[in-house]
Amino acid sequence: MYEGAIQDLIDELGRLPGIGPKSAQRLAFHVLQADTADVTRLATALTRVKELVRFCSVCFNVAESERCRICRDPRRTDETICVVEEPKDVVAIEKTGEFRGRYHVLGGAINPLEGVGPDSLRIRELMARLSAGEVKELILATDPNTEGEATATYIALLVKPMGLAVTRLASGLPVGGDLEYADEVTLGRAFEGRRAV
Amino acid sequence: MYEGAIQDLIDELGRLPGIGPKSAQRLAFHVLQADTADVTRLATALTRVKELVRFCSVCFNVAESERCRICRDPRRTDETICVVEEPKDVVAIEKTGEFRGRYHVLGGAINPLEGVGPDSLRIRELMARLSAGEVKELILATDPNTEGEATATYIALLVKPMGLAVTRLASGLPVGGDLEYADEVTLGRAFEGRRAV
Repeated sequence: MYEGAIQDLIDELGRLPGIGPKSAQRLAFHVLQADTADVTRLATALTRVKELVRFCSVCFNVAESERCRICRDPRRTDETICVVEEPKDVVAIEKTGEFRGRYHVLGGAINPLEGVGPDSLRIRELMARLSAGEVKELILATDPNTEGEATATYIALLVKPMGLAVTRLASGLPVGGDLEYADEVTLGRAFEGRRAV
Repeated sequence: MYEGAIQDLIDELGRLPGIGPKSAQRLAFHVLQADTADVTRLATALTRVKELVRFCSVCFNVAESERCRICRDPRRTDETICVVEEPKDVVAIEKTGEFRGRYHVLGGAINPLEGVGPDSLRIRELMARLSAGEVKELILATDPNTEGEATATYIALLVKPMGLAVTRLASGLPVGGDLEYADEVTLGRAFEGRRAV
């Protein structure tokens, strides 16, 4: 309905996930009224991501060199590997400051309905890292949902014979939450995992 | 928390209106995994909008030449001008197919709380267009909210002495709506504006 360039921008923005036609229109008019410098910075950031960002050759986290910042850090221990689904999970765990080992990013979780089998994930690469024999503990930090649990169980079965400790993040009540509002499964897990005080 | 380029993109996307940190991260990872051609097209569309799109010198709708498509159309009448707040209102009215006159885009509505007075809008330019004497009817199609009503009243007072018809879009029940769910003000307006059948 608009002329040329503005309609092109609305169309392109509308292709992004979670951006509907109304949001695309609102964003396009924001761009039209924004400073040219700001718009140029956004356009440059978009193309630079495609040019510069790749996946770490060791852990498959996002990186700008062959190995990511975490894999290059000599102060971190090689004895523990934390397995996650996506690079954003690495960021979430790094924010806790609790973990000083290395990561392994699978690139998703087993999901037969969407055609994601173990071969689509970086499980083979994980096994290769473990076979070097330096790792003492493997922490399975996939999401606490059906797909994440299935992936964790699958990896645990593969790894168990190698004789290293395999752990899973604790499930239970979220801190600051309300017992009353917890769903039955979470509350059940919290009972199962109860600890002496 | 991410390295270089991906964090830059998250930051730039997070500056857009209505895009929070989580959405910015989700969009950045979408871009990372998208086809380079798609990302290039989005980046180009962004810069092209700033290069090509300007405002029509007559009605201040978005345009890619000195006058917009609607102002250039010889099949439309110059006798009616429809006053709207934003270019997106032009698109909304064009979709109805009801209107064959010209538009005037104010660029907003009077809003003293946000420091938008009549001088910040293109009201002076509207008066100049009307003084040419060709216009027979001015349709005030600003939004049916406090700011839009104030703007319509302000323009009506200015224009009345010029002796042309000044009309306002009807307020009433939305078609397909439910009488029970209409707010009191809308229902009151619907009573006020009742028509013989």
